[in-house]
Amino acid sequence: MLADLPLPVVLSTRSGDVGVRRAAASDLPALIALLSDDPISAARGDRGGAEDVEAYSAGLTSVLDAPLNDLLVVDAADGTVVGTLQLTVIPGMARRGATRLLVEAVRVSSSVRSGGIGSAVMRWVMHEAAPATGASLVQLTSDAARVDAHRFYTRLGFVDSHVGFKYSVPS
Amino acid sequence: MLADLPLPVVLSTRSGDVGVRRAAASDLPALIALLSDDPISAARGDRGGAEDVEAYSAGLTSVLDAPLNDLLVVDAADGTVVGTLQLTVIPGMARRGATRLLVEAVRVSSSVRSGGIGSAVMRWVMHEAAPATGASLVQLTSDAARVDAHRFYTRLGFVDSHVGFKYSVPS
Repeated sequence: MLADLPLPVVLSTRSGDVGVRRAAASDLPALIALLSDDPISAARGDRGGAEDVEAYSAGLTSVLDAPLNDLLVVDAADGTVVGTLQLTVIPGMARRGATRLLVEAVRVSSSVRSGGIGSAVMRWVMHEAAPATGASLVQLTSDAARVDAHRFYTRLGFVDSHVGFKYSVPS
Repeated sequence: MLADLPLPVVLSTRSGDVGVRRAAASDLPALIALLSDDPISAARGDRGGAEDVEAYSAGLTSVLDAPLNDLLVVDAADGTVVGTLQLTVIPGMARRGATRLLVEAVRVSSSVRSGGIGSAVMRWVMHEAAPATGASLVQLTSDAARVDAHRFYTRLGFVDSHVGFKYSVPS
């Protein structure tokens, strides 16, 4: 948990107010649904099948227990979970001792996409969460196929200065 | 500290054996020199000037104290520090509950570059450190200007599937 994050918080969006809060174990089904609500994630193995519930549950427990990490959930006004993202604070020496705030696994439900929710949440990350954690750099990677997401992040003020490399460890 | 990392370790390279170990507070000057031994880092503010020693020192203390993080140092056979990298273990739900191993701030001294040290260390990360920490994905970003580094990571087995976005938080 990131003790310094000002949570829960209510954000105004074009599609109404949303709440951002820390995830709980009871969010497991909603989080699985969000992660698999997307063809690119599905192609990487997030299909939301019953055979994977145990692995997701173990992942959720690990991240809820992890210091320097927070898994967040976005609730619509009616209580539906409509988004999630993970924040990790990474202290370091590079860039004159900069602390980084890494954003992973950003998902907004396809049912509310283009309603300004993702943008409100990311602006909160950049302008509220990052300073609260002492981070001077916010960073994330986005699959090269997500061209719309790239425009979205650039519009928010991110710079696509890096290439993101991944290596899958053979199991 | 990552308790599960098999450290210290000796790796064979074309330019002789090197040792990989955890950084200590006494490595501060060598780490500052490595971080500024590179025009791209220098352009981002890592110039190694005396006015930045305090910020680097605070960064080093933070990372040495941080759970789920390890700052590593590579020693040549004569004891000279010739490389550094930072590892961060990130539990998560995406990719069926995958744990990620993030590699940040990889630097090899220009005096020994192309001697196979970077490649030996990265292979150790991929094939020894990642499985030891339970990670199923190793990830890193590399500045778009580092074309040689991109070839290097691709040759090792990394896939350049993502775009890396950064946002500098105004101070």
